[in-house]
Amino acid sequence: MSTTNRDFPISARAERATVQPIGELMAKGAEKDIISLAAGLVDEETLPARQIAALFADFIRERGPKVLQYGVNEGLHSLRRKVLDRLASSDGPSARDVPLSRVMLSTGSQQMLYILTEIMVDPGDIVITAAPTYFVYLGTLQLAGARIVGIPADEDGMSIDALESAIDGIVKAGDGPRLKLVYVTTYFDNPSGVSLSVERRRQLLRVVQSSGAVHPLVIEDAAYRELSFGDADTPSIWSFDDHGANVAHLGTFSKPFSPGLRTGFAVLPRAIAEKASILKCSHDFGSANLTQHLIDYCIERGLYDSNVEVLRKTYAAKCALMCQCLERDMRGLALWRAPGGGLYVWVDMPGFNTGPSGDLFANCASEGVIYVPGQFSYPDPAAGPKSKMRLCFGPATASDIERGIGRLARAARRTPPSGGAR
Amino acid sequence: MSTTNRDFPISARAERATVQPIGELMAKGAEKDIISLAAGLVDEETLPARQIAALFADFIRERGPKVLQYGVNEGLHSLRRKVLDRLASSDGPSARDVPLSRVMLSTGSQQMLYILTEIMVDPGDIVITAAPTYFVYLGTLQLAGARIVGIPADEDGMSIDALESAIDGIVKAGDGPRLKLVYVTTYFDNPSGVSLSVERRRQLLRVVQSSGAVHPLVIEDAAYRELSFGDADTPSIWSFDDHGANVAHLGTFSKPFSPGLRTGFAVLPRAIAEKASILKCSHDFGSANLTQHLIDYCIERGLYDSNVEVLRKTYAAKCALMCQCLERDMRGLALWRAPGGGLYVWVDMPGFNTGPSGDLFANCASEGVIYVPGQFSYPDPAAGPKSKMRLCFGPATASDIERGIGRLARAARRTPPSGGAR
Repeated sequence: MSTTNRDFPISARAERATVQPIGELMAKGAEKDIISLAAGLVDEETLPARQIAALFADFIRERGPKVLQYGVNEGLHSLRRKVLDRLASSDGPSARDVPLSRVMLSTGSQQMLYILTEIMVDPGDIVITAAPTYFVYLGTLQLAGARIVGIPADEDGMSIDALESAIDGIVKAGDGPRLKLVYVTTYFDNPSGVSLSVERRRQLLRVVQSSGAVHPLVIEDAAYRELSFGDADTPSIWSFDDHGANVAHLGTFSKPFSPGLRTGFAVLPRAIAEKASILKCSHDFGSANLTQHLIDYCIERGLYDSNVEVLRKTYAAKCALMCQCLERDMRGLALWRAPGGGLYVWVDMPGFNTGPSGDLFANCASEGVIYVPGQFSYPDPAAGPKSKMRLCFGPATASDIERGIGRLARAARRTPPSGGAR
Repeated sequence: MSTTNRDFPISARAERATVQPIGELMAKGAEKDIISLAAGLVDEETLPARQIAALFADFIRERGPKVLQYGVNEGLHSLRRKVLDRLASSDGPSARDVPLSRVMLSTGSQQMLYILTEIMVDPGDIVITAAPTYFVYLGTLQLAGARIVGIPADEDGMSIDALESAIDGIVKAGDGPRLKLVYVTTYFDNPSGVSLSVERRRQLLRVVQSSGAVHPLVIEDAAYRELSFGDADTPSIWSFDDHGANVAHLGTFSKPFSPGLRTGFAVLPRAIAEKASILKCSHDFGSANLTQHLIDYCIERGLYDSNVEVLRKTYAAKCALMCQCLERDMRGLALWRAPGGGLYVWVDMPGFNTGPSGDLFANCASEGVIYVPGQFSYPDPAAGPKSKMRLCFGPATASDIERGIGRLARAARRTPPSGGAR
């Protein structure tokens, strides 16, 4: 008797695992003659392949074959030490006093987002995010069965008044114990490009700490922190969490160095670090040891910091070019704000429907350009605005940016007003 | 109001995440003057660090900076193609016809075990394993809230009669729909060292296919397949699964090449591959791209296969030495069977209690040697034999093996019979 045609009796989590429409869209971006302003990749020209090749023999000679052995579940000690040292220089010297047991490396910061969600969220639990927010994380929350509450944001990031009233509402409804996470991208948000203001960072922490909810964990996603176009850095939310009791601070070596090394980091409250360590062991008992050693070595040799400087200049120039092209081709059709860092310009096209089944998206595809429809970044796409799009200047060349925005403008001029949004 | 002293309201999964005693034990192995015959690492001398350093410049020149960019969620196409080509030469040419969408790379095969368990198991669901079995996976099953049913094994691996009667019992109790996974290590098992006989491979598949259970997934863990000391290979269970409908075949590049590159692979039934792809994207949207490219390149340059040959000779010699030392020092105290491959000798010491709080373990630690107590490898440690231990000859030098077994024998002679087991 063959079981070929019987379905597997899958888990409730797997039942919630549905194909994200963004996947098809990214596949389209890989087609010939399509300029993708969608994919959130980095600029391949800036990847330090030649420099890593030049130091690799020294690296192996100095570190030895242990770089090819199993590593430590929580990540290479010396690199975790460097995470704290680097946080100390941006957020204050007390970061150096954090025990290493609260620092963990992961396969990109995405894996840490997954593990933290596993630790905190049962199906039906509540997670607060900005609206819009990082769409991959919305998929993770969907898998976990979370109820997502989106908080509107403006040019200073998530609205604290709206956050406070949302938490009040949750608590009054008797759901205080079910509010588990507040997720916020503090630097050059994906997709909106905005940073949470310093005053709001303090306020957010205060609101969460003094709420009637039991003890939600604040996840601060600082993936884009180092990709600032200016010189000023802003203290993290984590730096205001005096007892290290409320905030998980997540960063990555992907965006500011090399995504292919797939290494993110987190500084966690003690109780959360203990659970994360057990889960990480069960996930994979440690991310790739070779790439952790390589990042550690590149930091020691100065290659990491010099490369960050290159990236900041490169992305600042690309961002400026994209905004110039928008100004040249899209004035009157679109609104946008030049971000102070990161990889994205968040564009509003009032009167247009930017959705994946709308005319604009189809016309863009036929002109040969794609973008990420804004609706993917909203917890409830039906309730979000229909007129937004995310443009990424990360992997695009200058010529891609110029031609891509030109194609976008041609598509927009061919597209009848939808009357849908605004 | 500070929340420092309030506990986080963690998830049910995180409540099940408890520290495994094996962790402390491994930490002990890292202490000075302790010879660890416990840790399941590989021989550092065999790690091809020098050879990789020698080809790294060519690698970067030929592949370019894309090796440092984000990779593909499911893993590098050319390496997944090689997985199928290699399976074709060991399991028959039809492996080449499997669509690449059913092949996935992961952060070691452990990550694929985790994801498959997530896909199939809800709390209270039933998973069948051998008893003894791979203890890290027992921790993963505990996190998932699985009820584990252990099936006794002999020198040909898991008993098929016992498997059949266990499944019958599950179905008769009305739990057929809750039987989700049958996990089996087919080559040179961890910890027992035995391989499942070819006849039993066919029988196992037949029993699962014809059972009254709904459609349990067979996970074939072939992590040690390439570490055979002889020339004969055995067809995998997967090779008998004509419609690719029942078996997930898992392998790894860790044990036969370099664990620090942290890359495992799986060939999955179609429906499972679709779900695994969604979950993998949410876990990390792809394991380290650099290390996948590096393995792919090392296979193309012949370094992979030549290194496997070195490993097989090295481990065969170490295994022979360990068995000689056991013969010399432990005759009359212990029973064991020389394995045909892998990294472990499974030792029985009738009349002794090998548990972590027993006298033997304490005396070993004071003599300066540690092993993995057998009880960790049983789904129900209380019901398993008390007299087993796992010895690993992977990372130990010849001198470590000689001195380690000597210390073990001294400890055994100092230990009063427990009268506990047998």
